[in-house]
Amino acid sequence: MAIKSGREYKESIKKLNLKANVMGQKTGDLPEHELVEPSQKAVAFTFDAAKNNETKNLFCVESTLCKDVVNRFTHLHQSTDDLVNKVKMQRYCGVKTGCCFQRCVGLDAANAIFSTTYECDQKHGTNYHERFKDYWTWIQQEDLVVDGAMTDPKGDRGKRPADQADPDLFLRIKERRVDGIVISGAKLHQTGMLNSHEILVMPTLTMRPGEELWAVCCAVPTNSKGIHYIYGRQTSDTRKLEEYKLDVGNPVYGGQEVMTVFDDVFVPKERVFMDGEVDFSGLLVERFASYHRQSYGGCKAGVGDVLIGATALIAKMNGVAKASHIKDKIVEMIHLNETIYSCGIACSATGAATAAGNFQVNLLLANVCKLNVTRFPYELSRLATDVAGGLIGTMPSAADFEDPVAGAYIRKYLAANPEYETVDRMKVLRLIENLVAGAGAVGYLIESMHGAGPPTAQRIMISRQANIEEKVTRVKELLNID
Amino acid sequence: MAIKSGREYKESIKKLNLKANVMGQKTGDLPEHELVEPSQKAVAFTFDAAKNNETKNLFCVESTLCKDVVNRFTHLHQSTDDLVNKVKMQRYCGVKTGCCFQRCVGLDAANAIFSTTYECDQKHGTNYHERFKDYWTWIQQEDLVVDGAMTDPKGDRGKRPADQADPDLFLRIKERRVDGIVISGAKLHQTGMLNSHEILVMPTLTMRPGEELWAVCCAVPTNSKGIHYIYGRQTSDTRKLEEYKLDVGNPVYGGQEVMTVFDDVFVPKERVFMDGEVDFSGLLVERFASYHRQSYGGCKAGVGDVLIGATALIAKMNGVAKASHIKDKIVEMIHLNETIYSCGIACSATGAATAAGNFQVNLLLANVCKLNVTRFPYELSRLATDVAGGLIGTMPSAADFEDPVAGAYIRKYLAANPEYETVDRMKVLRLIENLVAGAGAVGYLIESMHGAGPPTAQRIMISRQANIEEKVTRVKELLNID
Amino acid sequence: MAIKSGREYKESIKKLNLKANVMGQKTGDLPEHELVEPSQKAVAFTFDAAKNNETKNLFCVESTLCKDVVNRFTHLHQSTDDLVNKVKMQRYCGVKTGCCFQRCVGLDAANAIFSTTYECDQKHGTNYHERFKDYWTWIQQEDLVVDGAMTDPKGDRGKRPADQADPDLFLRIKERRVDGIVISGAKLHQTGMLNSHEILVMPTLTMRPGEELWAVCCAVPTNSKGIHYIYGRQTSDTRKLEEYKLDVGNPVYGGQEVMTVFDDVFVPKERVFMDGEVDFSGLLVERFASYHRQSYGGCKAGVGDVLIGATALIAKMNGVAKASHIKDKIVEMIHLNETIYSCGIACSATGAATAAGNFQVNLLLANVCKLNVTRFPYELSRLATDVAGGLIGTMPSAADFEDPVAGAYIRKYLAANPEYETVDRMKVLRLIENLVAGAGAVGYLIESMHGAGPPTAQRIMISRQANIEEKVTRVKELLNID
Amino acid sequence: MAIKSGREYKESIKKLNLKANVMGQKTGDLPEHELVEPSQKAVAFTFDAAKNNETKNLFCVESTLCKDVVNRFTHLHQSTDDLVNKVKMQRYCGVKTGCCFQRCVGLDAANAIFSTTYECDQKHGTNYHERFKDYWTWIQQEDLVVDGAMTDPKGDRGKRPADQADPDLFLRIKERRVDGIVISGAKLHQTGMLNSHEILVMPTLTMRPGEELWAVCCAVPTNSKGIHYIYGRQTSDTRKLEEYKLDVGNPVYGGQEVMTVFDDVFVPKERVFMDGEVDFSGLLVERFASYHRQSYGGCKAGVGDVLIGATALIAKMNGVAKASHIKDKIVEMIHLNETIYSCGIACSATGAATAAGNFQVNLLLANVCKLNVTRFPYELSRLATDVAGGLIGTMPSAADFEDPVAGAYIRKYLAANPEYETVDRMKVLRLIENLVAGAGAVGYLIESMHGAGPPTAQRIMISRQANIEEKVTRVKELLNID
Repeated sequence: MAIKSGREYKESIKKLNLKANVMGQKTGDLPEHELVEPSQKAVAFTFDAAKNNETKNLFCVESTLCKDVVNRFTHLHQSTDDLVNKVKMQRYCGVKTGCCFQRCVGLDAANAIFSTTYECDQKHGTNYHERFKDYWTWIQQEDLVVDGAMTDPKGDRGKRPADQADPDLFLRIKERRVDGIVISGAKLHQTGMLNSHEILVMPTLTMRPGEELWAVCCAVPTNSKGIHYIYGRQTSDTRKLEEYKLDVGNPVYGGQEVMTVFDDVFVPKERVFMDGEVDFSGLLVERFASYHRQSYGGCKAGVGDVLIGATALIAKMNGVAKASHIKDKIVEMIHLNETIYSCGIACSATGAATAAGNFQVNLLLANVCKLNVTRFPYELSRLATDVAGGLIGTMPSAADFEDPVAGAYIRKYLAANPEYETVDRMKVLRLIENLVAGAGAVGYLIESMHGAGPPTAQRIMISRQANIEEKVTRVKELLNID
Repeated sequence: MAIKSGREYKESIKKLNLKANVMGQKTGDLPEHELVEPSQKAVAFTFDAAKNNETKNLFCVESTLCKDVVNRFTHLHQSTDDLVNKVKMQRYCGVKTGCCFQRCVGLDAANAIFSTTYECDQKHGTNYHERFKDYWTWIQQEDLVVDGAMTDPKGDRGKRPADQADPDLFLRIKERRVDGIVISGAKLHQTGMLNSHEILVMPTLTMRPGEELWAVCCAVPTNSKGIHYIYGRQTSDTRKLEEYKLDVGNPVYGGQEVMTVFDDVFVPKERVFMDGEVDFSGLLVERFASYHRQSYGGCKAGVGDVLIGATALIAKMNGVAKASHIKDKIVEMIHLNETIYSCGIACSATGAATAAGNFQVNLLLANVCKLNVTRFPYELSRLATDVAGGLIGTMPSAADFEDPVAGAYIRKYLAANPEYETVDRMKVLRLIENLVAGAGAVGYLIESMHGAGPPTAQRIMISRQANIEEKVTRVKELLNID
Repeated sequence: MAIKSGREYKESIKKLNLKANVMGQKTGDLPEHELVEPSQKAVAFTFDAAKNNETKNLFCVESTLCKDVVNRFTHLHQSTDDLVNKVKMQRYCGVKTGCCFQRCVGLDAANAIFSTTYECDQKHGTNYHERFKDYWTWIQQEDLVVDGAMTDPKGDRGKRPADQADPDLFLRIKERRVDGIVISGAKLHQTGMLNSHEILVMPTLTMRPGEELWAVCCAVPTNSKGIHYIYGRQTSDTRKLEEYKLDVGNPVYGGQEVMTVFDDVFVPKERVFMDGEVDFSGLLVERFASYHRQSYGGCKAGVGDVLIGATALIAKMNGVAKASHIKDKIVEMIHLNETIYSCGIACSATGAATAAGNFQVNLLLANVCKLNVTRFPYELSRLATDVAGGLIGTMPSAADFEDPVAGAYIRKYLAANPEYETVDRMKVLRLIENLVAGAGAVGYLIESMHGAGPPTAQRIMISRQANIEEKVTRVKELLNID
Repeated sequence: MAIKSGREYKESIKKLNLKANVMGQKTGDLPEHELVEPSQKAVAFTFDAAKNNETKNLFCVESTLCKDVVNRFTHLHQSTDDLVNKVKMQRYCGVKTGCCFQRCVGLDAANAIFSTTYECDQKHGTNYHERFKDYWTWIQQEDLVVDGAMTDPKGDRGKRPADQADPDLFLRIKERRVDGIVISGAKLHQTGMLNSHEILVMPTLTMRPGEELWAVCCAVPTNSKGIHYIYGRQTSDTRKLEEYKLDVGNPVYGGQEVMTVFDDVFVPKERVFMDGEVDFSGLLVERFASYHRQSYGGCKAGVGDVLIGATALIAKMNGVAKASHIKDKIVEMIHLNETIYSCGIACSATGAATAAGNFQVNLLLANVCKLNVTRFPYELSRLATDVAGGLIGTMPSAADFEDPVAGAYIRKYLAANPEYETVDRMKVLRLIENLVAGAGAVGYLIESMHGAGPPTAQRIMISRQANIEEKVTRVKELLNID
């Protein structure tokens, strides 16, 4: 059984000796870095859950590829049930970590590349699919974490890759050698990159004839020569570095985004899965994006559960849990959160097999799912802020809470429902702050907007997938219009 | 094969010789009545679709009850696939008829009664379940239309049944005889009643000890002695009686609601499925309501498709189809409509078997589905009104269009995109008017709000089903709060 | 004092002998026609209110033009107080009539023409302003009702006037004579046209050089030779023709829209206020539209008051007035309605004098006002539907209520809170139906969307008026960006 | 002329020698503290603007109280024009500082206390009004900053003051002496407290008979014996302490909230304005709250202008300013922002004189204003996040930007529209981050929700002020219902 524990995972990452620029310093020993550690714990959770008796049925699955039981985060979906279970697993990880656990993007990339390479090979006579199967068999057997790297810097949004002032603003093949390619460019917003073993590089948009050098898909180890990492800042991130941890909000887990520069990185042939086939670049983007838009129907609903739970708990702590307007706001939060989840389930349950054999989500409904994710978490946050009270924006620091004089005042005056400790009330308020306006908001709000593409990208896909002309035809039939 | 055609269905209804008060007159020959006929055609569509080669796979299903192929509208769901297919079938009927096709309520009632009677028998030693199986086997074999009658008048909403000025304000058992019961009361808003062969009477809310006489469930033929029907008015209903039909909007189909009075109606024992078991009244209501809230995820999405198609078509006819704001509004309509559908699919795909063996929808998600239905069709209507233009509220009558002088002016001045006939543009405008502010709005807006219970009923169910305490527990675990 | 009573107004209209095509027939004696009469009563209300001791202070105002006290509906605003009082007067008319009282459009047209002709004369040396002052002095002295006619049919929206298949699709000057002009074309959606003495014709959009023949503004008596009227249908309009009036909803008042054809109508020179000055066509449109968008901040808030009152009353009648969710919905309705009103007040209070001396509303805020009007009445209607219950879509007809058998059942089963008569409950339900899905919805919903231009027109104006560049400059200053 | 400059103001604050617990340390020299300084600059702006030739007409006003020209931030409003100008002044401060400038609360408190003491004196024969006039004359003459302290900790929200475990959970009179009173308790969320000279203490809610000790209003110097300050944390607050300032977002200004403890503070008689008159406690709360809800219609619209400007600028910098969906989102932001402003203007323009002579806002519309403020800034933030792109959540730190290696990569890969510097693009992104999820979000989002009371408080006031019964009466009249 190719299932690693969280501890084994952490050790394997440590061996990679990754280095990154973090807050002005080039840093190794990243997993121990206080800014990084919470995010690694969140990834580690996805391993431990596969070892946990209560959850292993959901997290472990028989792979037809490597003929072994694998972690579902490396699985090629074989049915709509697999797609549904993916969403359920993601919701569970979300509610347990209260943040982005970072491992979905590689899963989504793998499933998209698997089917796209198959169809590309059929048309172009390439052998990318076999290469990818070999590669991914190894991933499954070693239970590795893979980052899916899609988002290019894009420079001036009004211009195509070749028209940019700097051709690297879209990641490109800089040189073709006999044994492989050299790539140059960068990927922004790379979620969980420093917690990953491997990177799957993909194009950022549909390339056109003449843009073959930008139509590249390949796999790269995270510790490859030529890769540079610059850590992304999050709101309130340095609270993780403070002496007292109460103000961090989420005391265990966190997210991670990294700017990743590819400065002439060599990729051997067997790790290249697209090299200039512009006619398949759009398909790859579309499929990856749709899987990833499905993912948000799970993970963000899970984080939403945490926010709902925290809101219900602070209402009790404040002594207002029975007020009708409070109950009504919590019901509204649940309603919106379950609507997101419903869209995640629906695009899974109505998925279908690809020519390569793995299952693809319903493209229309996956985009509908994500478009709701760009809206409802904001309303959940607004309602949580309403119920929690103004303290989430004005509460004294944990350091003042530790001060004998100030701390006593804080304890005295932040007491509310006597069934709860004041410090516990402060913990819940800090968790809510974390999700609505702190480091957690990067995952729960900003990533909900832009992860897997901004709302306009979903709208374009909805427009394409909805078959408006068929609806027009039905109306003409009903009205007897030619 | 127990599958009837639309024609056979219509003949079978005609034989019932139903009479009703319609617009001030006691009327027989209802199916031929111009106010009634469109609604019967909509029901007939559900029969013809089961005979149609293109759709029979969706509409026909093998019944384990009567061991024959039956129309899915009489089917007891045997799997989550059955639940999903129910929603797909409903969406298809919605887009083909553009209105309420009325046959879901009996289907939903049957599935709820099937499982509730089983559990009631287990506890109380009654034999309702066998009675119901016999009854429903007959329904399946004869392919009958059954109305599910739940909504009591309820009188003063602040009072329980026994405290009302008139005990009939909740339908009740007025007399218990050796061979059956006599019921008295009324059911409001009965959808498709005059197009039905049978009525399944159910309680309207959870009855409490002492309210046994109001805890009644039974089956009654629509042409029973003692039943009186009073036809419900719809917005712009009498346009169906006018000489020129253009102004009707939906030229073929329509909905129907009837006030149904039970003036001492006798029900023989074998048709009684609950008689005083107050502890099962709430379960029956909850299950029926949830099935019916699922239904709306199909049918209203189908009608939404018609509205979207009509909006896209009028945009072309007006010559504005390519304006970015128009395209954006249509995408928004699709997005909202598919969100409704996603909720319908999700509560189906996550359904589960009952003790009796048939499948129940996910109660939480079914309520989430319906709550969205109380919102999104209103926004779809608003957007359709925006795109269509003010003419839907000011266009001259069909009669004036037929006038040689006025008609010529109308033809001249309502011409728009020359690729389309003016009269066809008028048809589309009238269809949109029908759905946003005409007879169709009764089904698409008012019924979306109140059918299967108003939004507050869904909120209460969401509150009960969401397991808020588990979310609170997760937060306590994460924050290490006892 | 140039103030007429409602009765005097009605007599003066009768003398005009207007004829119109109504529901297939050419009809005179319009004021007595049951379809037309309610709309005339609504206009008459604006006269009687000026005679009423309680309200005359608001409705009567000293005119600097005719040096007499005039009805504010004919007033040229002399201050921001005048602008604010206009909105207050409109809200009052709205809450008293529950419909569109039709008289604002001429008032808004007059104020726009007054200032635009002044500036046009300054630039072009024309004498339109004096002509208009003479004309409007007469209007004030005679206390006449004037329709402002702006909306052309526009044919194919993708084409300019001269490129249409038919040049009449935008109303145009067909012939220029020594003593005047001949115009040809049509105006759609003309509110209250058949209740008016005069028409102020205006261009429908900004005309460009080469489109001089479409840049026309002039005054025409409603009974001019060559004008043809075709009555606009409203939802449920023919209920006004039925024997029993309960189902009409609004038992007294109603709106009116008319398609108005100008088939070679001659206009003498002294009644022409723009003849080819394309550079002032846009200004005229913009000013008129802004006044009219202000108007909606008054009238629609008034109709909103009626809907709120009806919702609060039906809640009492149903016995649910004290339920927290009911109270909350009514508060939400009030909040949205007062937001509309606030925008109406704000664009008035921040208005400014024009070069001609009368006062113009704040163009930005007037457009913001109207854009809210395209949204909030829809939510008010949705909430009213929620509170009212499904009966507004299924209640039996007034004719059945009069039937001895059916009527008794209706009376028995529609009884609710015993403090109220069943028939009164039915009246309130019919009023709500009227406003959310009946004839009243034409004014309250469809007109709220399209009257004074659709939302896109407001968005364009907001974009132009908001001075985005100044905001950008402020940000650059703050951030010290060059 | 009693107008100070910003420099004079700062010096006067310095002389107070205030001390506070800030991030775990008792700290003096607060104005120089990097966490505090930006907030003091924002207050100082309100002084400098009164000296600035471009703005002094708006900021300076003749006081009838001290018979001198005063800063409008200390003015007792004498007309609706004064109320309107207050809102305009607040919007201007908001757009110039991009944050909460803290000085409104004292202004709003003064106006509320002025009129309430007058009415209290009339009824109870007290002489609070004269005392307050003397006190406020001094404030005006000295041009002081006054904090209005209303929000008590409130402990268990389900209990009244006297029923709390600790009577100090609502600030109270602990002792009555011949020469004054001793107060004990705390006020939370005190905006700008450490930048103030004086505090106006007010009760937090309507007190009832028996709660006289909690019905207290008085003035206290900020440097009084017995007062303790604990600084409130804000999201990302410590970025202000970092070496490189780019990540702060707003490079100049910021907000401030302080937990303020009154540990047996003596207040001499002449500074007491309410002492046990429970029947006036509610009126005082209601008036203060309404003035402060009006304020938000100005200040938040001003901050909204900054967010709109930043969004428009980042769109240019990204090269997408001309995309229709971008333009549409910016128009939507403007629309919502101007709606807030319109409500601020409307409640001012419809204000009225109190018995004491100063002007009170329209209570209904002021609450409507604030209720919109609890909604629209959230949607503005969501739209700004959409337009800005994911970088606001993932951009590398300023320290990494200064690193020669990492900085070069950042410069290369964050280049976009070549007309702009990369570093300027980063500044704008950090400003947007500041407002939607950073320190600025405390003022723009959390304070918009809870400042001047949470939305439920506004809903209660709207319900009370809206005169629902009058609307019901109008409907009864229209329908001829007794």
